Amino acid sequence: MTGTEVLSGRVSDRNGPWLADRLRELGVDLAFTAIVGDRPEDMEAALRFMAEREMDIVLTSGGLGPTADDLTAEVVGRFQGREMVLDEALAERIAEIIKPLAKRWPNLDREAIRVGNVKQATIPAGATVLAPVGTAPGLVVPPLAPSDGPTVLVLPGPPRELQPMWADAVKTDALRTALKDATTYRQQMLRLFGIPESEIAETLRVAQREGVELDRLEITTCMKRGEIEVTTRYEPEADSAYQELVAVVKARHGDTLFSEDGSSVDEQVAALLREGRRARSIATGESCTGGLLAGRLTETPGASEYVKGGIVAYSDEVKISEAGVPREVIEAHGAVSAEVAQALADGARSRLGAEVGVGVTGVAGPGGGSEEKPVGLVWLSVAVDDAPKLTRSVNLPGGRADVRDRATTVAMHMIRRALVDPDGP
Amino acid sequence: MTGTEVLSGRVSDRNGPWLADRLRELGVDLAFTAIVGDRPEDMEAALRFMAEREMDIVLTSGGLGPTADDLTAEVVGRFQGREMVLDEALAERIAEIIKPLAKRWPNLDREAIRVGNVKQATIPAGATVLAPVGTAPGLVVPPLAPSDGPTVLVLPGPPRELQPMWADAVKTDALRTALKDATTYRQQMLRLFGIPESEIAETLRVAQREGVELDRLEITTCMKRGEIEVTTRYEPEADSAYQELVAVVKARHGDTLFSEDGSSVDEQVAALLREGRRARSIATGESCTGGLLAGRLTETPGASEYVKGGIVAYSDEVKISEAGVPREVIEAHGAVSAEVAQALADGARSRLGAEVGVGVTGVAGPGGGSEEKPVGLVWLSVAVDDAPKLTRSVNLPGGRADVRDRATTVAMHMIRRALVDPDGP
Repeated sequence: MTGTEVLSGRVSDRNGPWLADRLRELGVDLAFTAIVGDRPEDMEAALRFMAEREMDIVLTSGGLGPTADDLTAEVVGRFQGREMVLDEALAERIAEIIKPLAKRWPNLDREAIRVGNVKQATIPAGATVLAPVGTAPGLVVPPLAPSDGPTVLVLPGPPRELQPMWADAVKTDALRTALKDATTYRQQMLRLFGIPESEIAETLRVAQREGVELDRLEITTCMKRGEIEVTTRYEPEADSAYQELVAVVKARHGDTLFSEDGSSVDEQVAALLREGRRARSIATGESCTGGLLAGRLTETPGASEYVKGGIVAYSDEVKISEAGVPREVIEAHGAVSAEVAQALADGARSRLGAEVGVGVTGVAGPGGGSEEKPVGLVWLSVAVDDAPKLTRSVNLPGGRADVRDRATTVAMHMIRRALVDPDGP
Repeated sequence: MTGTEVLSGRVSDRNGPWLADRLRELGVDLAFTAIVGDRPEDMEAALRFMAEREMDIVLTSGGLGPTADDLTAEVVGRFQGREMVLDEALAERIAEIIKPLAKRWPNLDREAIRVGNVKQATIPAGATVLAPVGTAPGLVVPPLAPSDGPTVLVLPGPPRELQPMWADAVKTDALRTALKDATTYRQQMLRLFGIPESEIAETLRVAQREGVELDRLEITTCMKRGEIEVTTRYEPEADSAYQELVAVVKARHGDTLFSEDGSSVDEQVAALLREGRRARSIATGESCTGGLLAGRLTETPGASEYVKGGIVAYSDEVKISEAGVPREVIEAHGAVSAEVAQALADGARSRLGAEVGVGVTGVAGPGGGSEEKPVGLVWLSVAVDDAPKLTRSVNLPGGRADVRDRATTVAMHMIRRALVDPDGP
């Protein structure tokens, strides 16, 4: 992954993770991700490192833009011992692509465009061109002699250019050859919510003691947005070992294991609202999360089928006037309280005409905390139809952004629970 | 950066970028970031690579947890030729830290905790311990003989443990020694909105032709959430060259250069609302962004001073009942239209009692687009007091998440513009 902006952290690397997923699906082992700046000698060092570790394929992303600090094609060409040549057909193709830009940006500098065009069409001799999605072509640059080092697959930096190009890349001979010997793996994910990671570590030790063949399973556990993900990769013959592991996890964590098929709580909530025992619409009344819960519910394509909307009741006046929270309730219990969370859920439900209402109110920090109501305290309430509401408080760790994000995760799990068992407390 | 969950992309690496920022502030050059999985041989290979490239310091993050796949301390110890020993004082300290967990998770397995405790307190002999923030200690592991290889600074994976530990780490002799020879750099950032990146490339060529000493400036440009960031690092003596560069950028891009001090549009909007020509409160009426704009406005600590709240009017009924959009306007122009954006801005302002109202409505996709109103079309409107509204449409590229996120950026810039010049069109 190249680019000073990625190395320096001003842009987070979305390509490494995405490519890792694609490779895993294909049974290709990803051994390293290196992030290097725009200095050619650093890029070359990283390529050398990968070659010395006898990688079959090296993927690069970034550094294909029109500006002079975009050097990937040149560095890779030199590394593979190939001259840089102007590909006239490619130059024409890029010229076609950028024509409409002139309309969109009428004051554009023509000379800037021409120079950028020539730069982007100058590629290592003998490289295979992958059609540009933006203006940058991808490149497959094989070693001069077959199997004399890795084939380098050069991809653009912007995820929305890189991702569509991947489909073309996997069709190339270079990648096909490498894939021939790849083991086909299965990959499964379990998701749990509401226990610490150390519990899973112990569960794996228990499974081992009970004779589950863990050495046939490649298990990784991680904590993500407050949930634990247990990902297991294995060869198809080890399926029975995996099923045994699942049985142990279920026995020990039946109440917190919410996903056996890798589905996220967002997907489950969407499915429950869309086609649970009966379809239901939802509305939110948010204070501390400031719209992030509504934002999360509407992330799912097609959310308009069941999301009516929400009220972001950040100030007390708006809680009263828009969400219908009684002023006396705020005065008696404070804005961060079970009662206000419940009133927000009720208000969202009744004002927006939804079957499900969710209320969230808390202290996101960094200021505003007290001994009684510290930063991280969040009250949540879910109302489904006229059933008794599910209401609880949590003390969330971390800074303002963590507390707000984590609160949306807790809310999603409470919505899920209330929909799975609408009559439960 | 270690951890299969980071390499595989299931968790995004927040530490690399954060540490890069801290190092840059200290004048330390970050040459590489390597992400490796939990395989010890891969971690060792990465350490060897760094050592061969004659790095003075190698930072690691992750792999210090209580589970058996957390191997960083052991791998680093072996790499530095140091035995692993149980630090009894550290074990006691960790035991103290995890005691309260037993209250929070009453069904916790005691044996799991004890095993994890011993593992986390077993460290390379001669390493300096950095006090745990969570349960994992940090470690400074010097080479056996002075200057015989890099000093390795071992930090925990969770950002909220790593970040506070950094302050202790920079006080260690190892880091101090390396910093002695570091050049002090200045770093400045310009931000522009509304032009493509190629324009900046051309501006740099113009600056070069006009005699600005660009070789004294280390300039990187990048596109982030629809904005261009131009970051320049330079030695203090090159300040005049930087000032000349700024003058050229201003001359060519005065209308799109919105930040000369690196401040973000979010910070500028917060400052304008808080202490602009006069303080003003704000409210949102959102359709396609589903609460993300309110979420973004309330990201800033202290936002409750000026954010009243918002209406997430996802369904047409909610647009009508809660945001006060006249039914006839939706019927005449469609939900995605200038008129509805304006009505949402009006409704948010009047219903929530705010001085500034923002309306956003668009086609986020993937479905719902038409020839006339394609996916990516978003109408936005900003109403300040009773001045004529600022209303415009944009055609945003990318998928659903991109369109929604980018729409909040456009909204922020429109809010900024409307507040800087409330009587403008």
